[in-house]
Amino acid sequence: MRISGTHYRTLWPTAAGSIRVIDQSRLPFEFATVDLETLDDAARAIQTMVVRGAPLIGATAAYGMALASRENASDAHIDEAMRTLQATRPTAHNLAWALSRMRRALAGVAPGGRPDAAFREAAAICDADVEQCRSIGFHGLEIIRGLAEKTGRRVDILTHCNAGWLACVDWGTALSPIYMAHDAGISVHVWVDETRPRNQGAALTAFELGAHGVPHTVIADNLGGHLMQRGQVDMVIVGSDRITASGDVCNKVGTYLKALAARDNAVPFYAALPSSTIDWSLDDGREIPIEERSASELTHMTGLTSSGAIETVRVVPEASPALNLGFDVTPARLVTALITERGICPASPAGLRGLYPDRRAAND
Amino acid sequence: MRISGTHYRTLWPTAAGSIRVIDQSRLPFEFATVDLETLDDAARAIQTMVVRGAPLIGATAAYGMALASRENASDAHIDEAMRTLQATRPTAHNLAWALSRMRRALAGVAPGGRPDAAFREAAAICDADVEQCRSIGFHGLEIIRGLAEKTGRRVDILTHCNAGWLACVDWGTALSPIYMAHDAGISVHVWVDETRPRNQGAALTAFELGAHGVPHTVIADNLGGHLMQRGQVDMVIVGSDRITASGDVCNKVGTYLKALAARDNAVPFYAALPSSTIDWSLDDGREIPIEERSASELTHMTGLTSSGAIETVRVVPEASPALNLGFDVTPARLVTALITERGICPASPAGLRGLYPDRRAAND
Repeated sequence: MRISGTHYRTLWPTAAGSIRVIDQSRLPFEFATVDLETLDDAARAIQTMVVRGAPLIGATAAYGMALASRENASDAHIDEAMRTLQATRPTAHNLAWALSRMRRALAGVAPGGRPDAAFREAAAICDADVEQCRSIGFHGLEIIRGLAEKTGRRVDILTHCNAGWLACVDWGTALSPIYMAHDAGISVHVWVDETRPRNQGAALTAFELGAHGVPHTVIADNLGGHLMQRGQVDMVIVGSDRITASGDVCNKVGTYLKALAARDNAVPFYAALPSSTIDWSLDDGREIPIEERSASELTHMTGLTSSGAIETVRVVPEASPALNLGFDVTPARLVTALITERGICPASPAGLRGLYPDRRAAND
Repeated sequence: MRISGTHYRTLWPTAAGSIRVIDQSRLPFEFATVDLETLDDAARAIQTMVVRGAPLIGATAAYGMALASRENASDAHIDEAMRTLQATRPTAHNLAWALSRMRRALAGVAPGGRPDAAFREAAAICDADVEQCRSIGFHGLEIIRGLAEKTGRRVDILTHCNAGWLACVDWGTALSPIYMAHDAGISVHVWVDETRPRNQGAALTAFELGAHGVPHTVIADNLGGHLMQRGQVDMVIVGSDRITASGDVCNKVGTYLKALAARDNAVPFYAALPSSTIDWSLDDGREIPIEERSASELTHMTGLTSSGAIETVRVVPEASPALNLGFDVTPARLVTALITERGICPASPAGLRGLYPDRRAAND
């Protein structure tokens, strides 16, 4: 996607052999990049959310394996790198998927050939992610087009967190259909949940929609239900960090509340995801590990002062404890359909098996 | 209630004839009071949320009428004062209720006697609010006691926004039963929704629960549904800004989402309110006017810097519009029961008529 007229992916290899990523912890107030030189750099970038979003976590982890193999291509170091990267974020399934794919790619290669093979495989993972997100966009576009034709007016779409191109390598998952609809001349407007506590909606989704010129309005996470009651939401579309083989959708905490409101108001609710997000080994969303992050993400907020400085302020009394769980699980029964790179399917075991007959709940 | 060992109400008349209020816009970081000397002072304090919470808005408006009558006790000025105060916050019903009661109290009084009559009536409104909140506490206490006896463990209660003593004159509505349960030795713990965009939960509920020693944990508004899915919420209790004669509950935006999650997880959901919150003239919650406030409440946040200064930072890109609606309406079908000063009743026309046989949907 473009920022100020220049095309960007969210990460790319430099001529000097590092991996350059957009530092998302500084958006929307500063556009800066960071170079990852080592395995530890990659792990830290994922852990501290310099990069975030399930597909981008997977892509960064893949390059983290490549950087590790350049440091030391032994089996022991490759295994250690996998463990280090896997420990960074427990919920996103794309992380485990990318690590498994990297390990398979290196398994039959002698240590001397591993660095080149690893960089090639990581690049292939990134290119595949871009193509998958593009396909998700094409499939989702038809849903938006159908709503526009049915209502004859602007399509109002609510999204939670950031599942745009910043969450992927390019295009995005939930936002890809929106970009394509906008580019196709369909009138769309996005209700952007600010997405506490990390504010990925206010900070990232608003930033990237604005950069692309898509009309949008930032709202408190609390407001979506009321807007649905008033008939001001035509569809909800979110990304996902992990989907079970039964169609339960794990995503940024608060997604479940929006799905309940969508159901209560007959608003269609979609999750958009590449197949790398599907955890074929799980049937029950309650088995998905839910990441607990630092309470400081809730008790403190960072923004821009009136003098233009970036400042962090405490918004909760010092004596009050706080709990910060990053995800929740929306049961499949509340999900109208899943949008994947292979098409649209019901959020059900049969629905997913229909699109992925080759992946009947086998482990990765 | 007590702060650092001193008993406070949220507003009181001073010997000099002003009305002193706790400046809630500076909590939890500064405990300061403000003196209201004039009608305009009172209107501004309500508008800018120096005072907030439906019962306290009503009490402040009553004293606003008293201050107005001291400025000029003519019918014209009294009418003008009513219009000015009514315009400050459109949603809270206690405001209209208190203004009507003040007008009735002054109607048969000659202008010369009005200031004294008005100050007496405002004081009576405050005293009645305290007694009503105390009664709400007694009734709600029995619900909490029942849960404690049933489960034999700590009772986990989720609340949204601030409906504690800071929202009233004393005790609170939703928090009154919690204070009484805690004081009665029942083990309670409160999940405090931070309540974006104004953060009344993180700023006020956490502050007052902490000051009273009630165990609590601040959470993002997004987390409550997940906690209910995990069985970590035994009941939800909220206040209300206006209740229809049919039992629809208007409250701080986001309440509806919690009610949906409570229903989906078989968690009882209560609204606690004095009868001054009931709008007998309305049957359908969709008719309640929903206040739109400045987008800056969403795009900017105020807190304490690491050096101890109070600072406001922008958290949304400058180019992105934002919408800030303050309330939503929870349909009566999602409400387990209402807790009022007269007891507990179903959220239904029959339920409310049963407790208030004298008030069959007649206008105030």
